[in-house]
Amino acid sequence: MADAPPLTDPLSAPSATDAVRRHDPDVRSFASDNYAGAHPEVLAALALANGGHQIAYGEDVYTEHLQEIVRRHFGPRAQAYPVFNGTGANVTSLQAVTHRWGSVICAASAHINVDEGGAPERVAGLKLLAVATEDGKLTPELLDREAWGFDDEHRAQPQAVSITQTTELGTCYTPEEIRAISDRAHEHGLAVHLDGARLANAAATLGLPLAAFTTDAGVDIVSFGGTKNGLLFGECVVVLDPDRVHAMKHLRKLSMQLASKMRFVSVQFEALLAGDLWLRSAAHANAMATRLAEAVRGIDGVRVVRPVQANQVFAVLPKDVTERLQKRYRFYVWDEPTGEVRWMCSFDTTEQDVDAFAAAIAEEMAR
Amino acid sequence: MADAPPLTDPLSAPSATDAVRRHDPDVRSFASDNYAGAHPEVLAALALANGGHQIAYGEDVYTEHLQEIVRRHFGPRAQAYPVFNGTGANVTSLQAVTHRWGSVICAASAHINVDEGGAPERVAGLKLLAVATEDGKLTPELLDREAWGFDDEHRAQPQAVSITQTTELGTCYTPEEIRAISDRAHEHGLAVHLDGARLANAAATLGLPLAAFTTDAGVDIVSFGGTKNGLLFGECVVVLDPDRVHAMKHLRKLSMQLASKMRFVSVQFEALLAGDLWLRSAAHANAMATRLAEAVRGIDGVRVVRPVQANQVFAVLPKDVTERLQKRYRFYVWDEPTGEVRWMCSFDTTEQDVDAFAAAIAEEMAR
Amino acid sequence: MADAPPLTDPLSAPSATDAVRRHDPDVRSFASDNYAGAHPEVLAALALANGGHQIAYGEDVYTEHLQEIVRRHFGPRAQAYPVFNGTGANVTSLQAVTHRWGSVICAASAHINVDEGGAPERVAGLKLLAVATEDGKLTPELLDREAWGFDDEHRAQPQAVSITQTTELGTCYTPEEIRAISDRAHEHGLAVHLDGARLANAAATLGLPLAAFTTDAGVDIVSFGGTKNGLLFGECVVVLDPDRVHAMKHLRKLSMQLASKMRFVSVQFEALLAGDLWLRSAAHANAMATRLAEAVRGIDGVRVVRPVQANQVFAVLPKDVTERLQKRYRFYVWDEPTGEVRWMCSFDTTEQDVDAFAAAIAEEMAR
Amino acid sequence: MADAPPLTDPLSAPSATDAVRRHDPDVRSFASDNYAGAHPEVLAALALANGGHQIAYGEDVYTEHLQEIVRRHFGPRAQAYPVFNGTGANVTSLQAVTHRWGSVICAASAHINVDEGGAPERVAGLKLLAVATEDGKLTPELLDREAWGFDDEHRAQPQAVSITQTTELGTCYTPEEIRAISDRAHEHGLAVHLDGARLANAAATLGLPLAAFTTDAGVDIVSFGGTKNGLLFGECVVVLDPDRVHAMKHLRKLSMQLASKMRFVSVQFEALLAGDLWLRSAAHANAMATRLAEAVRGIDGVRVVRPVQANQVFAVLPKDVTERLQKRYRFYVWDEPTGEVRWMCSFDTTEQDVDAFAAAIAEEMAR
Repeated sequence: MADAPPLTDPLSAPSATDAVRRHDPDVRSFASDNYAGAHPEVLAALALANGGHQIAYGEDVYTEHLQEIVRRHFGPRAQAYPVFNGTGANVTSLQAVTHRWGSVICAASAHINVDEGGAPERVAGLKLLAVATEDGKLTPELLDREAWGFDDEHRAQPQAVSITQTTELGTCYTPEEIRAISDRAHEHGLAVHLDGARLANAAATLGLPLAAFTTDAGVDIVSFGGTKNGLLFGECVVVLDPDRVHAMKHLRKLSMQLASKMRFVSVQFEALLAGDLWLRSAAHANAMATRLAEAVRGIDGVRVVRPVQANQVFAVLPKDVTERLQKRYRFYVWDEPTGEVRWMCSFDTTEQDVDAFAAAIAEEMAR
Repeated sequence: MADAPPLTDPLSAPSATDAVRRHDPDVRSFASDNYAGAHPEVLAALALANGGHQIAYGEDVYTEHLQEIVRRHFGPRAQAYPVFNGTGANVTSLQAVTHRWGSVICAASAHINVDEGGAPERVAGLKLLAVATEDGKLTPELLDREAWGFDDEHRAQPQAVSITQTTELGTCYTPEEIRAISDRAHEHGLAVHLDGARLANAAATLGLPLAAFTTDAGVDIVSFGGTKNGLLFGECVVVLDPDRVHAMKHLRKLSMQLASKMRFVSVQFEALLAGDLWLRSAAHANAMATRLAEAVRGIDGVRVVRPVQANQVFAVLPKDVTERLQKRYRFYVWDEPTGEVRWMCSFDTTEQDVDAFAAAIAEEMAR
Repeated sequence: MADAPPLTDPLSAPSATDAVRRHDPDVRSFASDNYAGAHPEVLAALALANGGHQIAYGEDVYTEHLQEIVRRHFGPRAQAYPVFNGTGANVTSLQAVTHRWGSVICAASAHINVDEGGAPERVAGLKLLAVATEDGKLTPELLDREAWGFDDEHRAQPQAVSITQTTELGTCYTPEEIRAISDRAHEHGLAVHLDGARLANAAATLGLPLAAFTTDAGVDIVSFGGTKNGLLFGECVVVLDPDRVHAMKHLRKLSMQLASKMRFVSVQFEALLAGDLWLRSAAHANAMATRLAEAVRGIDGVRVVRPVQANQVFAVLPKDVTERLQKRYRFYVWDEPTGEVRWMCSFDTTEQDVDAFAAAIAEEMAR
Repeated sequence: MADAPPLTDPLSAPSATDAVRRHDPDVRSFASDNYAGAHPEVLAALALANGGHQIAYGEDVYTEHLQEIVRRHFGPRAQAYPVFNGTGANVTSLQAVTHRWGSVICAASAHINVDEGGAPERVAGLKLLAVATEDGKLTPELLDREAWGFDDEHRAQPQAVSITQTTELGTCYTPEEIRAISDRAHEHGLAVHLDGARLANAAATLGLPLAAFTTDAGVDIVSFGGTKNGLLFGECVVVLDPDRVHAMKHLRKLSMQLASKMRFVSVQFEALLAGDLWLRSAAHANAMATRLAEAVRGIDGVRVVRPVQANQVFAVLPKDVTERLQKRYRFYVWDEPTGEVRWMCSFDTTEQDVDAFAAAIAEEMAR
């Protein structure tokens, strides 16, 4: 009978594995911050948390410690609920601030509205009241367009607003802008959810601590994004106002977002948030986007069409150029009719990557 | 402006991290195979897959390669859909084999019925038709108790049966038993789902390849368990009969089980399934349970009350003994009134762990 | 251009219609109290409420007046929410006393569990925790079997119990029995829902006012059945404890149970409840069942197998007799294996109907 | 004990009832066609169908006969599924033409999007892809704005389009316009649902049989409105292309829209559709709206702001006039900011009603 496997410490002596490296770790694209892998410091943290037994489903010491870390960033009332992915974080959060008869106001461009396969509607039964925006950002006035019909049973009752920071269009709310939305929302009796898949990028852009534009700006619950910030996987729902949020624990489970070996989600967040890895990584990604925008602004025929306030650059190119360029670098066309494309930088994008890409753009424009 | 972080290869030179080891990696319990961490070979695989950019959401090379591995184990028609967790695997699978008006027959003890926080009902709208069993195993006859009322709109239409291998009660179906259920289910027009959170343990018990008691036994779709088999996280829905399963791709997304950096789920399964890690680990866990059962059978007043066919031992102890023992080792009381407890072994349980635990039981019984 | 149709008063001068009577109004069966039509007094009430304009969706004078009538029967805090049908009444009620993460304890034989096409699960996402019973009646002890696991996120949280009065098996709870269940439920923090599809029959059996075994027995919300009591259609959710019930108004709408011309539901209930029509009709139906039971008890080979406490008789007959009898009278086989059949009487069942049916049973037994 | 109630024929001799007439049958408003009662011919039909026993849940002779009537109007493949209300008809229909992962394209002004309390999302899990329109009418081009992303799991898959005839804005599609939408929808693989809450009004406007702009224009499934056409309650889902529609029977039940005494829904539709009551009533309501529009066009300061193609008039008035007028007649403000109001005529609106209302408007304008 086989004995237990030897309990080597992966930090000091990596094991053999039957898995095989199948990709070139030096190839990077401009398609998405999801295309990147994990930050090496995050990987190292996994190894640290490994070995021995820890209580499953979140009663482990790493998840316990994460509470403290999260309170440091988001204030003394903050509570951390690690989950698997962004859709899970958002849909769980939204259920926690609405009733069965609730609806959620959001920008038409919001990830929950266009990129989650209908999960908010299908899993949570939520109607989204989507408002068209210029730049992905709601305002109190835009909120008011859908914040009405309270007590009218013919209308799915607005009970929350969801904003995205930084937005899907690469823009960044100021703390004052968020505060204004929160105040208006609370006046209407709505809770404020913030989809922070790129919250770290906002902090880097604003040069502010996380609480400054979340807790202190009246936000009630945040989907804090880990994956795009360098984790292998994992997001963290952060409850900021426990009085407005209910039953996260039960909702996380029934929304199928409860990790059994939660220590491996929590310790990744520790790697990110205990020091400044979260900020370093985000600042770097933002800087690379700025560098790229600057580089292409000098190229005739390329038009940067949105403010570069995070790690994305939106530009308009001739379609044939886009097609040729996509054979060399992967990235997405954002809007087919206008030819707008999106270039996204990541924590691991290098200056050389940016410069080489900009050169490729220039080359293809010149052909 | 900060440069990109240095792209060290974590396999050869582990990074520093701000995370801190907070637990004793030598302490193990008998509470659950979810309490264990990850197998070092799995951790090593993560590092291999890291670095560089890979297409998100499953178009990466690791997920592509996983298809081949899964076909090797489950036959040429098998398709792999990595997901996050067991509840996610089960609920996504069940949606893929039922319509909106469907229901699912299962054992009353099934994980989907008692341990998933109502996710099948809440997320998928599925009625579970639960059947009491002796030992956690359905039979064609038990299936027939609920497989009726077809075409009667007053009855949620039975469209699938879900069995668990090995069962929640530590028992293991033979291939013939599964075949008999599948045949009966298919006669009724029902699809067959297998919750294989501990499928590897069954293979080890039966001494058979995975296909022998799944694909070849008429199963249509499997939730293949990775977490309890030594992954950090990750399960894999394996479609065996693509003719009976629909839209897994869409259902996985809307069930919030689509990992963006899927390479990190897939490469873990590669570490498990490319060689024999899956079987080694399961066989070891099973062997430890057998060793434990044998050890305690010699202790007066301890009664092993169910067959030990996987990595669990169910025993009845005096309650005061249980209470004292729980102060020394973590494990669960399975049935309060009868005093039945469950002891579970894991891939990392050692012979020394078992022997020490058995000694502790003997000590406490003797007090 | 056509003028408005003449506004004749249908009470005094019935209109012509293009519809044609297609059935024999003198033929009655013993299949279900749903097979009966409407009581003529109910039909007359419809005509009374017709003509002119009334605010839609429940702000009409008939619905307003219904509140008063319902308070008379159920106490000063009672609130009436007319809906369309029994499934709608039950599923709307249950949503009003549970959260998204709730579950409902009920008898395995409950209509919500076996006859509603999975609507509680599908529409409301509710897990039903079904308990086997002898006679369709829960007890505090049976309730306790499923009232556990509070605060454990792996368990869909028990938040309500649903009992049926009279039960699907023709039995009737005493007020004390209901009180005992309510007390236990409230101790556990559960709300008490009563499916009163045949509540009037219970009042007739018990010889008690409606409040005596609902409001006064601790019930929080009732689905009061109109259809089986002689309405064309229509049930009424009666909220007894407004502190335990939330958002009925919104839930009724989103559950698709909000009638636009609600006056026509409400006035039917007025016809029923303003005087004693509800009780007369139920008492008559009960009496006919008793008469039938007495008649068949004298027939050799026919066995009445359950107490006759409402308008149903359950009996066991030889299968060939059942088959021959079904060619003469429509009724349902309740349990195929045992040969148990159900005979149901209605407000319009006559003594002659019963006597003729009993004679037919005797004849077929004698063949 | 009381004998059965005497089975009087309500057609010839109306019963007494404990209900009391509580309203003035001569008062009519311009608020909604839902404020009207039932047409006397419909009431008479109820009485005809009453008495005796009929199989419940739709196996009665009236529902059977309705199939024939519906085939006469909608073609030989048409199937009728009577339901309770419009929301129920729509949500059941949409489930019958979509999968769990589907979404539905509709006009932003559609009843399903703005007036059903979120039932499509909550009950059916459907994401609505709402498109802004000028006049409540979709076009192939507007459809194309949302008919994309097929096979992309991040997008809730468009599987149906829902149009409303006549629209919520009082406009009427031509058969050619519907055909163009149907063709485009079918090219995309989408089914075509038509919310026909006011389908009869469209037929009257177009001077065409019902099939001409439904079945013959490529529509797959219709919610045929009975309530606004003079029924007490009741809508009818009419399946036009059974190949594109699935499991209506099961979906109607689980959507809580299955009437037990269905004969009373079906016979109302017989009263409507066997002869020309449906058309007479709708033509009359339309004519009254036209009369009203003509009358107010002559009043200085009142502006009719939308085409009058059915039974609604949309006009802009000074707000103080609206307020004074609302004290005399009930009607709704459609758009608060612009001061647009909606006046709706019904089958029972008389020429005198219209003339008196127009006079009142003139009076209030003159003050």
